[in-house]
Amino acid sequence: MKRSTFLKMTALTGTAFSVMPSKVVFGNPSGRLRIGIIGTGMRGQELLRLSLQRDDTDVTSICDIQQVMLDDALQLFQKAGKPKPAIYTGNQYVYKELLEKEDIDAVIIATPWEWHYPMAMDAMDAGKHVGCEVMMGTTVQEHWDIVKKSQSTGKQYMMLENVCYRRDVMAALQMVRQGIFGELVHLQGGYQHDLREVKFNDGKQPYGGGVEFGEKGFSEAQWRTQHSVDRNGDLYPTHGIGPLSKMLDIHAGNRFTSLVSMASKSRGLHEYIVKTGGETHPNAKVNFKLGDVVTTMISTANGETVLLQHDTSLPRPYSLGFRVQGTKGLWMDINKSIHVEGVSQPHRWEEAKNWLTQFDHPLWQKYGSDAQGAGHGGMDFFVVHAFLEAIKRSEPTPISVYDSAAWSVITPLSEWSVANNNNSIAFPDFTNGEWKTGKQIFANSDDY
Amino acid sequence: MKRSTFLKMTALTGTAFSVMPSKVVFGNPSGRLRIGIIGTGMRGQELLRLSLQRDDTDVTSICDIQQVMLDDALQLFQKAGKPKPAIYTGNQYVYKELLEKEDIDAVIIATPWEWHYPMAMDAMDAGKHVGCEVMMGTTVQEHWDIVKKSQSTGKQYMMLENVCYRRDVMAALQMVRQGIFGELVHLQGGYQHDLREVKFNDGKQPYGGGVEFGEKGFSEAQWRTQHSVDRNGDLYPTHGIGPLSKMLDIHAGNRFTSLVSMASKSRGLHEYIVKTGGETHPNAKVNFKLGDVVTTMISTANGETVLLQHDTSLPRPYSLGFRVQGTKGLWMDINKSIHVEGVSQPHRWEEAKNWLTQFDHPLWQKYGSDAQGAGHGGMDFFVVHAFLEAIKRSEPTPISVYDSAAWSVITPLSEWSVANNNNSIAFPDFTNGEWKTGKQIFANSDDY
Repeated sequence: MKRSTFLKMTALTGTAFSVMPSKVVFGNPSGRLRIGIIGTGMRGQELLRLSLQRDDTDVTSICDIQQVMLDDALQLFQKAGKPKPAIYTGNQYVYKELLEKEDIDAVIIATPWEWHYPMAMDAMDAGKHVGCEVMMGTTVQEHWDIVKKSQSTGKQYMMLENVCYRRDVMAALQMVRQGIFGELVHLQGGYQHDLREVKFNDGKQPYGGGVEFGEKGFSEAQWRTQHSVDRNGDLYPTHGIGPLSKMLDIHAGNRFTSLVSMASKSRGLHEYIVKTGGETHPNAKVNFKLGDVVTTMISTANGETVLLQHDTSLPRPYSLGFRVQGTKGLWMDINKSIHVEGVSQPHRWEEAKNWLTQFDHPLWQKYGSDAQGAGHGGMDFFVVHAFLEAIKRSEPTPISVYDSAAWSVITPLSEWSVANNNNSIAFPDFTNGEWKTGKQIFANSDDY
Repeated sequence: MKRSTFLKMTALTGTAFSVMPSKVVFGNPSGRLRIGIIGTGMRGQELLRLSLQRDDTDVTSICDIQQVMLDDALQLFQKAGKPKPAIYTGNQYVYKELLEKEDIDAVIIATPWEWHYPMAMDAMDAGKHVGCEVMMGTTVQEHWDIVKKSQSTGKQYMMLENVCYRRDVMAALQMVRQGIFGELVHLQGGYQHDLREVKFNDGKQPYGGGVEFGEKGFSEAQWRTQHSVDRNGDLYPTHGIGPLSKMLDIHAGNRFTSLVSMASKSRGLHEYIVKTGGETHPNAKVNFKLGDVVTTMISTANGETVLLQHDTSLPRPYSLGFRVQGTKGLWMDINKSIHVEGVSQPHRWEEAKNWLTQFDHPLWQKYGSDAQGAGHGGMDFFVVHAFLEAIKRSEPTPISVYDSAAWSVITPLSEWSVANNNNSIAFPDFTNGEWKTGKQIFANSDDY
């Protein structure tokens, strides 16, 4: 796309453009993209691996405080036949050195949730675009800060929500766009994933084998579990709300208006510790604040309702629980079924498979083979591809800072509702009214 | 059961007993049960048919204002070889004559929702026990009135919620009672049923064929549809909450404590009218207040959460959407699957079928063949059986007036929440604290 065309287009794209005003910094003059990666744990390594696969991207620098993770990351450079990067390590604030010293276009951040906020703020201040793992911040105010920082610096912020690119979910998006379900009415999603072996391990392996967390844990158990101790709400809403948001054209003529959450009792994590580590294990005394099942309802300006479920502490099969329902039918992933009025037998489900194949998204058709082997069934390929392509082309990222904020802010809003007698709370409008005229730019083509 | 045994038992049953104080009227001295049926529409006819099958029950009288429905009902007497009943007809208040003149133990009420309240009140005043189709009243106050009337008259009131007796649901109840799911954490149910051909018809047939309702409609369309015009909330919560309530031991050590609801936009009914009857049909101008999908969250004293969904105006397959989840696993009916920790493969569903067979409830084992051919897959047999057996034996009905009130009051509470910005509302305690010591008497044996 020529720059003049791009400028014309972005001028029309409303909210997507508004974070890229006159200050927009275009890609590296060489035509290559230069990035740094902050956080090379299990997740960061996958994002790194995908970045290294690209022939238009140089990963000049990596940053982590754990040598074992840096070592694993360096092996990925070797495997990919790419030059060794600059390494920043030694203390938790060394990422600032990376930001100051490296001549890069963007950073990818894959650190513990609580570090996303300061790192993204600093990165934008340092003139870098940000691709950040899910969860923007902890408080509502932090979400506002990120949005305003993106606006004032002209730097983009994209939350790397991979489920937006799940193959069946993208096919459902195509069906929505082609009116198969009629006008949307009610949508569901969530995060229902038994994370007990993620939240606890033996301090050596990333999954299970013990009931340690925090300092004695390894990988996510080192930091993620503490959130289950301290917080009660939907701690991980973006896998559900991300894709649904794109179907609902949030910030492209629609927005979330209010939210209400309810949490069940908390039993699962404690019982797991007792069962696996014994009643005398010190962690058996830990009081987990997080309810085992947290249910959230969200309303939108256009009158749709959204139901989100967070369920990560009990034994159960993985399910994001998608349901996309409109005036002409609905799709659900839990029973792999669809009903479309006038096509399906009245009052009968039919297998979703054929529909999902028929409406396979052009992106998957084009890049399906490239995505093979990428994390989470290939989704990770697409989300990394989308971020890097948009930055390289100096186009608005398909998940904007407003999208990112609206999805991630569900957590503090949900915590508020749970703590306040399940009353409803108004949803902040991070776009300051621009949602009304914003245009949808997510996955409109087979580009990215 | 001997009377002395019964008195001993009921003295221990807490809430179940408290509506049957000294005033309790025991069954007919003849040992036979005498009943009247108020409302012999489509639903009343099924309840009548099941009553006529019994050799311990005399249906002495029927009441309706539509001759066609009375005629159909009389045919059922003939078919069953039972003596012709007294017939009360002519005006909407003629049921009062039935109540005054008939020497009966109980009435079964199967009239439009808005008539349940006055008829049940009058019936208890006239000294009759009440078996009433679902929905107790329209306002919260009406629910209190029924409870207090039952207490002051010593007459029982049982809402005839048939899904409490669905075979798979009763098997799930058995699993709950035997601890298969561990401690309960989160439950789901609802009423997801495309009722468009129930809400509209041609005025001659009960289902579909036109877009008439109210005076020009037939059967349920005559009265049920108006509720979709006037009200916005979960208008039909009992199919979901009834069975879940029994699993949760509501009023037997537990109770509902608060509720919050959210409604989607309203599109389905209007679109159906336009599509089927054309834009110029007068009903195309009707404004339906009921949101197409209404979602409700309920909390309990013991910390479980309950999710209810009401979805009756859109094209979709029937599903009550049950989910029963505890610390050791969960069952869902939508995907016919179950997961039990330590038995199922970790993180994997298994088919629920074998489990449901293994835990088949003793009632179904005993009466399954009798139930064959009864409405709604046999459930109707059990709910009629339970009501009539309890009344005949002068024992507390397995669904108490408190249960009935708590299930049905969800509708006005839900309407309040929808109308009040989705804020939460405290659940009334109809038992006045007796829920703490109440004993579970629902389906404890193969008796009824």
